[in-house]
Amino acid sequence: MEDEKWMRRALHLAERGIGQVNPNPLVGAVIVRDGRTLGEGWHERYGGPHAERNALRHCAGSPEGATLYVNLEPCCHTGRNPPCTDAILESGIRRVVVGSLDPNPLVAGRGISLLRERGLEVVTGILKEECGAINAPFFHYIRTGTPYVILKYAMTLDGKIASRTGASRWITGEAARERVHRDRGRYAAVMVGLGTVLADDPLLTCRIEGGRNPLRIICDSSLSTPPDSRIVRTAREVPTLIATCVGEPARLSPYRKAGCETLTLPRGTDERLSLPDLTAALGKRGIDSILLEGGAALHGAMLDAHLVQRIQCYLAPKLFGGAAAPSPVGGQGVESPAEAFRLLRRTITPLGEDLLIEGEVCGNVYGNC
Amino acid sequence: MEDEKWMRRALHLAERGIGQVNPNPLVGAVIVRDGRTLGEGWHERYGGPHAERNALRHCAGSPEGATLYVNLEPCCHTGRNPPCTDAILESGIRRVVVGSLDPNPLVAGRGISLLRERGLEVVTGILKEECGAINAPFFHYIRTGTPYVILKYAMTLDGKIASRTGASRWITGEAARERVHRDRGRYAAVMVGLGTVLADDPLLTCRIEGGRNPLRIICDSSLSTPPDSRIVRTAREVPTLIATCVGEPARLSPYRKAGCETLTLPRGTDERLSLPDLTAALGKRGIDSILLEGGAALHGAMLDAHLVQRIQCYLAPKLFGGAAAPSPVGGQGVESPAEAFRLLRRTITPLGEDLLIEGEVCGNVYGNC
Repeated sequence: MEDEKWMRRALHLAERGIGQVNPNPLVGAVIVRDGRTLGEGWHERYGGPHAERNALRHCAGSPEGATLYVNLEPCCHTGRNPPCTDAILESGIRRVVVGSLDPNPLVAGRGISLLRERGLEVVTGILKEECGAINAPFFHYIRTGTPYVILKYAMTLDGKIASRTGASRWITGEAARERVHRDRGRYAAVMVGLGTVLADDPLLTCRIEGGRNPLRIICDSSLSTPPDSRIVRTAREVPTLIATCVGEPARLSPYRKAGCETLTLPRGTDERLSLPDLTAALGKRGIDSILLEGGAALHGAMLDAHLVQRIQCYLAPKLFGGAAAPSPVGGQGVESPAEAFRLLRRTITPLGEDLLIEGEVCGNVYGNC
Repeated sequence: MEDEKWMRRALHLAERGIGQVNPNPLVGAVIVRDGRTLGEGWHERYGGPHAERNALRHCAGSPEGATLYVNLEPCCHTGRNPPCTDAILESGIRRVVVGSLDPNPLVAGRGISLLRERGLEVVTGILKEECGAINAPFFHYIRTGTPYVILKYAMTLDGKIASRTGASRWITGEAARERVHRDRGRYAAVMVGLGTVLADDPLLTCRIEGGRNPLRIICDSSLSTPPDSRIVRTAREVPTLIATCVGEPARLSPYRKAGCETLTLPRGTDERLSLPDLTAALGKRGIDSILLEGGAALHGAMLDAHLVQRIQCYLAPKLFGGAAAPSPVGGQGVESPAEAFRLLRRTITPLGEDLLIEGEVCGNVYGNC
C-alpha cells in the first residue's frame, strides 16, 4: 500500500513531462525516508537529466538509507546522460522500487541486477499496469522503431462522424474538444488524409494554454492539398509534412515554398501511398506517436494495415441518421465478426455529456493481447 | 428517505408484471405501519385486479391507520375493476404516497383530490423519475394512442452493425443477447424490415425461461418475405403480422395460410408503406410498445418520421472497419449537427464486455425534453 502510494506520486510527476520528452519515456522519481519525501524529480525535457538525478538533486538532505520510487527501471548505460545506477549507488539509497522494466529486451533487468549485486533491495512490478500505460507509446516505439498510432474520432450514438451533408461541427461538447487539443500536445504528430483537409480545412494545432503543436502530417497520394488551405498557409509557424507519391520537384515546390516539408513514398497495393513505408520513415526521424484524426478512408487503410495501436472514440449522446452520413472507419475491414479487432483494457471517461471510450487494439504485430 | 425506501419496494413489485399487463401500466403497492410491511401486491396481469387491491387482500391484519405506497395514482373511475380509491377509503388507510400522476390529463390528480377530500394525507412525487421511467411506454401510449418505439441495435465501437459481408453473428456477448431476449418479452411487439429477414432469417422470439413471445411484425412494402423464412414457418406458434402495401388476396393468401396476419397499408411519400399509418393501426389494436430491431433502412425511416421514443445501443469493444459495412441508422437523417436527435436521461449499463447505452429521444412529438 505504502509502495503503491509513492509509485502513484512518481507517475504523477512523470506526467509533467507530457509533450516535452518525446521520443523519450515519461519518468518520475520520489525519494522517501521514514514516510517523508526527501526529494522529487521527473524527466523534464528531451535530452535533459533523468528523473532519478533530478530527484537526487532536489533532496533536502542526504538520501542515505532512503527508498527511491521510479516508474521505469533506472538505466545502467551511458547515453546522453551517465548511468542512473551510478548516481543511485553513490547516493546511499538502500531500496529501489521500480514500475516497468526497461522495454529494450537486451537491457531489461540489467539495471535492477546491478543494483541488487551491489546490495540494494529492489522491488519490481508495483502499479505495473499504470506504469505500462503511461509509456505505451515509448514501449511501442522502442520495440518496433515505428510510431504508436492512436485512431481518434468523434461519433454519434448511431455511428456517424458527420451528417449526410458532411457537416461535423460539432459532434461533441467543449470538454471533449479540449481533451483532443490536450492530446495534440501530448503526441509527436497528428495525421489526416486529403479528404479531411478538403472537407473541414482544419488547423490541427494544440489550442490550449502553453500547449505544444505537434507535427501535422497530411497523407495526400496525389498531392491535391489546396495551397490556400489553412494548414498550408500556417506551415511557416507550425511544422507540416505532406506525404505523397508525387516526386516531381515542380509539383512539390509550391508546398515547400509555403513552408511544408514533403516526403515522397512508393505506392502500396491499393495505388495509394504505402502506409508501412510512411510509418517506418516517420519512426526513423524520431516520431514516436501519431494522433490519427481522420477521415474514414485513412482510418480504414491504417487499420487494415495493422498500423493502429489504440482507439479513442468520443461518443456523443445524439443521432444524425442518414444512409449517406459517414461512419468512422472505412477501408476494407474484416470479413466476419470473429476476425474483429478487439479492444483491450477499455476505459470509459465521461466528458460533459459525451463519453471517451478508449482501449488498445488487440491483434497488432506485438501480440500484446 | 423512508418514503423513498418503500416506493422503491413498490417499483420492485411493479416490475413483476413486466410482459403480463400490456397495455396496462406496471404498478406495485406496499402497505406499511410502524416501519413494517402489512401487505404487498402488484398488477399481475392484463384485466386482473389493481396493485392496491392485491396489497389490501394480502394484508396480514387490518390496515387501519397505515400508509399505502403506490407508484401510480390510484384510479377513481370504474373500468374493468371498481375504483381503487373506494377500496383505500374503506380500508382505514390514513396516508397515501404516490409516484406518478395518472397520465390521462382528464383524470390526473382526481384520485388524489378525492382521497384528500376524505381526509387522507397524500404525498406525491416520491421517486418521480423512476416512477416515470418504469411506465414510459404506458404514458406514451395513453397520451398518443400509438406504440412506444424502442430503436435497438448492436454495434461495434466503429459504428458497424455487420461486417462488410453482412455478417453480424455475433457482435455482442451472451449477457447483452440475453438482455435482448428479456426485452422481447417485455414489449408488446418486435418489428423488423424485409432486409433483416432476408439477411439474418431471425426468429425474433423470447428465448428465456418463462418468457412471453411478442407479436412479430415485418415491414414488407412489396410483400417479398420468403414463405420458407423461419418467421413464416413458425407463424402458427408465434403471432406474426406482415405489414405491406400489397392488397391482392391471391398474394396475401400464402402468408395467411401459413398463420401470418397481414395488414395492407397505403404508401407514404417514399413509396414504401406509411409508417405513421402503421403505428396508428398497431396502437388501435392495443400494441403499446415495439422493440424495433432493424435494419438500418427501417430504423432511418422510423427516426425520420419522428416515430422513435427510445434508443438502446449495445456497444461492443471491437472494430470491424470497412467502407461497405453497414451502420445502424439509414434513412435521410438530419442536415446539420445542430438538428441532431438528442438523447435524454442517458444511462450506461455494463453487460459482460459490452455496454448498453440507453436514452429517450428528444424532439419527439411530446416535447418532453
